[in-house]
Amino acid sequence: MSQLLRVNMSDLSFKYEDVPEKYHHWAARGLTSSLTYDEVPPNCHPLGPDNKVIIAPGIVSGTNAPTSGRTSFGGKSPLTSTIKETNAGGLSSQKIARLGIKAIILEGQPDEKDKLWLLKVNKDGAELLPADNLKSKGMYEVCNILWKEHGEGVAIIGIGPAGENRMCAAGICVNDQENTAGRYAGRGGMGAVMGSKGIKAIVIDDKGGAGVQIADEKKFEAGIKKLEEASLGHDVTKREGALNTYGTNVLASIMHEAGGYPTRNFSSGRFEHTHQISGEAKVEMITKRNGEGTTGHACHPGCIIQCSDRWANPDGSFKVSVLEYESVWALGANCGIDDLDKIADLIWACNDVGVDTIEMGGTIAVAMEGNLLEFGNADGAIKLIHEEIRNATPLGRIIGNGTVTTGRAFGVTRLPVVKGQSMPAYEPRAVKGIGVTYATSTMGADHTAGYTIAPEILGVGGEMDPFAIEKAELSRNFQASTAFIDTTGYCLFDAFCVLDIPSGLEGMVESCAGVLGIDWTVDDIVPLGLEILRKERLFNEAAGFTRAHDRLPDFMTKEPLPPHNTVFDVPDDLLDAVYDFEQWPTEK
Amino acid sequence: MSQLLRVNMSDLSFKYEDVPEKYHHWAARGLTSSLTYDEVPPNCHPLGPDNKVIIAPGIVSGTNAPTSGRTSFGGKSPLTSTIKETNAGGLSSQKIARLGIKAIILEGQPDEKDKLWLLKVNKDGAELLPADNLKSKGMYEVCNILWKEHGEGVAIIGIGPAGENRMCAAGICVNDQENTAGRYAGRGGMGAVMGSKGIKAIVIDDKGGAGVQIADEKKFEAGIKKLEEASLGHDVTKREGALNTYGTNVLASIMHEAGGYPTRNFSSGRFEHTHQISGEAKVEMITKRNGEGTTGHACHPGCIIQCSDRWANPDGSFKVSVLEYESVWALGANCGIDDLDKIADLIWACNDVGVDTIEMGGTIAVAMEGNLLEFGNADGAIKLIHEEIRNATPLGRIIGNGTVTTGRAFGVTRLPVVKGQSMPAYEPRAVKGIGVTYATSTMGADHTAGYTIAPEILGVGGEMDPFAIEKAELSRNFQASTAFIDTTGYCLFDAFCVLDIPSGLEGMVESCAGVLGIDWTVDDIVPLGLEILRKERLFNEAAGFTRAHDRLPDFMTKEPLPPHNTVFDVPDDLLDAVYDFEQWPTEK
Repeated sequence: MSQLLRVNMSDLSFKYEDVPEKYHHWAARGLTSSLTYDEVPPNCHPLGPDNKVIIAPGIVSGTNAPTSGRTSFGGKSPLTSTIKETNAGGLSSQKIARLGIKAIILEGQPDEKDKLWLLKVNKDGAELLPADNLKSKGMYEVCNILWKEHGEGVAIIGIGPAGENRMCAAGICVNDQENTAGRYAGRGGMGAVMGSKGIKAIVIDDKGGAGVQIADEKKFEAGIKKLEEASLGHDVTKREGALNTYGTNVLASIMHEAGGYPTRNFSSGRFEHTHQISGEAKVEMITKRNGEGTTGHACHPGCIIQCSDRWANPDGSFKVSVLEYESVWALGANCGIDDLDKIADLIWACNDVGVDTIEMGGTIAVAMEGNLLEFGNADGAIKLIHEEIRNATPLGRIIGNGTVTTGRAFGVTRLPVVKGQSMPAYEPRAVKGIGVTYATSTMGADHTAGYTIAPEILGVGGEMDPFAIEKAELSRNFQASTAFIDTTGYCLFDAFCVLDIPSGLEGMVESCAGVLGIDWTVDDIVPLGLEILRKERLFNEAAGFTRAHDRLPDFMTKEPLPPHNTVFDVPDDLLDAVYDFEQWPTEK
Repeated sequence: MSQLLRVNMSDLSFKYEDVPEKYHHWAARGLTSSLTYDEVPPNCHPLGPDNKVIIAPGIVSGTNAPTSGRTSFGGKSPLTSTIKETNAGGLSSQKIARLGIKAIILEGQPDEKDKLWLLKVNKDGAELLPADNLKSKGMYEVCNILWKEHGEGVAIIGIGPAGENRMCAAGICVNDQENTAGRYAGRGGMGAVMGSKGIKAIVIDDKGGAGVQIADEKKFEAGIKKLEEASLGHDVTKREGALNTYGTNVLASIMHEAGGYPTRNFSSGRFEHTHQISGEAKVEMITKRNGEGTTGHACHPGCIIQCSDRWANPDGSFKVSVLEYESVWALGANCGIDDLDKIADLIWACNDVGVDTIEMGGTIAVAMEGNLLEFGNADGAIKLIHEEIRNATPLGRIIGNGTVTTGRAFGVTRLPVVKGQSMPAYEPRAVKGIGVTYATSTMGADHTAGYTIAPEILGVGGEMDPFAIEKAELSRNFQASTAFIDTTGYCLFDAFCVLDIPSGLEGMVESCAGVLGIDWTVDDIVPLGLEILRKERLFNEAAGFTRAHDRLPDFMTKEPLPPHNTVFDVPDDLLDAVYDFEQWPTEK
């Protein structure tokens, strides 16, 4: 049976524990949120000893299920003060699972604040090694050093200087097959929490691990077959489909066309240079440069969608992976920057110092509005990350703490945030459902919390008018089913195919039920998701959150957004309706 | 009849309005909180166009009532996001009242963000004059310039560079009889709100003003006589009594002795150098220097307590007024600084750049804990205010935004704040009642919101064990009666005598009833105060505050404080009991 590995940083001790029965069917987000709800005092300081970093692979992670390599990182967020789950691809999920570990729980806090530790986990157990040699090092160098020291192929989970300095925009990095530092559980400042525990990096070596026990092999195999067929049969997720060809940045042209591509700190829904930074432009340039750049790249072993890429410099040499839609938008259109090479530099800098690209784009745009630098000043933006944050200068400490801190420092009132977290790349004034998700999500503004863009813009899972305001039920169902998918270990992009292909959805659920040996059906998805959301909402409520926080910033309700010149007009009662329903499901 | 003067900064227009009947009996805090509750959207950005700065003298301000020159400044706080009332002495209260103005309401926001305005109000009306000549100037120079331009004796309300730069620790300054910039409505960042309106200063000239109408002269005169007798007859407030002789800093030795004098970012209740910075030390040095320094000084005309002072340099020349208990503690003991001349430099710098001394002391102590500079480094602390904040450097923008922002920037988790506002000079672990007030006040941590120190430490208004935890009713009654006193225009220090001398309390109420021509008795004090608190609580609730915010920071519940080695152990239900009672009074 899988176990929980507790790492107590107050006394540098370890404990392997049997998994309590009540957590049996939980993994990834379902487990991180349950443990946070059960163990973290909602009113604790997120960077104090009572907070935890809980690292958990999904239900099917470590098996041969396709596209299932997500690792969840949970705890209380220093950025939002809410509960937080943020997940990433890369190597860690499958290796943790194959070591028979259901979650690694980092807790307590060392007395010596300046000392850094490396946590090493393999089949023989865990150990803490001094890691002062990694102090202030960027994640690219950390990955190189750790593969040299601990063997090629090991999974690395780490933080850059931003996390060491407990900056609230700091993410947690996971390496990938090429050992590049590009897979980030970026949101909510969980890198700062890891930094507050004194842990610079975790090395996971699964050689000789017991592997994942599958209770009902037959059900599992039948499930993954159905899911694989759906994935390979849907226009969005198939080989040479939209994601595989253009990566997630296929969305740039689509959102621009829809007038919902936030530009220059959310002051327009269209960027006049979108065509220079779109997915199409990216593929054209990678192809033309004909060097080490690739598209259709997998962010973790076993992914069959392969939406990642590796960007090449003008001379063809490898620069950075990955030019994700969100990152390109955040550090591109939202900052008025129209040059993919500069954007690639910015993404590289974020990955190296260890900050969330979405939060950084929001932050730099706000700093631009506050006249720290001009919109479009790419070199100035790079300096902010590469030098100021890296060296933890006073300015770096402002920028590295995200949009709200930067807005306060520079007196900016147009802050596109919810619960302290920067909005991603979809304009709520042009796509109302995603605004409902931003407002009501347990995580602060987060597109992955309930991606209503699918029916509102992409025609996936039905079709809905993006300007219609009655989106409470839609958002609730997306938030609940997302909480479930975030628990499975499957990538959220599997949602594209399973929304349209019922057998794919069955396959997803059956593969999980097969691993766990229980009788879930597709009818269990929403109730299970709501169970998770219920704990998250209760945690937030105890931490002081109310419906008054389930709102978008007031400027969006007043300032019309070009080109449609619409405001966010979803009334409060239609926001409150998301979590105002007959009865929360009780725990299974 | 008195009027409301509305100044709309969006179109630079004025409006004099009759006072609606429902505001008839309100003034000062009662009026600023009523207007904020009625007119300011609780979820607005405090520095956006929807917030207001409401400036209101008290009920008896402008009459010959003794010690009645307080001006209230209200609106939504950018520091706490709660409703805010903060008041100051100086010249403004009486002059506004004598012009027949019940409140000046600054609203809207100019399009041109960099332009500064001077609002001039006299018997002929109001006008807005360009004030770009005052840009970036400190308040000492602003006061000098404005007396030269507009006549000696005019009242000045203004902001320093911190307010212009919308920093959340910025206060609003009022000049005094000597035209020094030392009277501050410091708390909650209302100076930033004034800055966000583009108003650098307000000049009030009451020459030829109509004066204050008194409905029942006889009742009023009888009332002030009783209050004056009480004031002059109580050991704390009488001539050559404790306050008159030593100023408020008489409390330093007392709080040190009680073990409740917060030292080095609230890590001890005693400062080994208290004797060097106490009220006694101050008087001794002022006397010895035998120059322009004075004690027993009045902060506004008509004050009969006269607890202010004017500090002199070693050569006898005037330095700064006033060395208040809170300021000396905040910038002294709490930062480990033991030199009154250095502390005077710090207070001067705060007054000039325009920041709250309490918030600054809390902030610099947190920066010291975060290793930005050493505890006790007075010159470093002065540089932070005098240079960094003044010049709005990135570091200045961190420090100028207060304790929470600084804690976030430097990764410090021991933050002695409630609702984002720094605690004043009383340690809740050694004096539990004041902790109950800090936790539950509508204003964030604020000793003036319900000064339970009186019975807990001073034996005024009864005697209570400071370590006893049943303080809910005590704090509620103090919070309610304080809300009433903050409405009268009387200085809160009148509370010392009226708590012990019943005829003084009667006199206070009767003088107000005399001005208004209504039948208040002392039995009305608590219900009237609760009416105000109710509106403040409702505003905060709508802004997203819950009981989860009515708590002290968790380190105080865990970390024992020397010398008594006690934690803050008032349980949550005894905190919630403050506002958990049968029924709020309904509006009169």
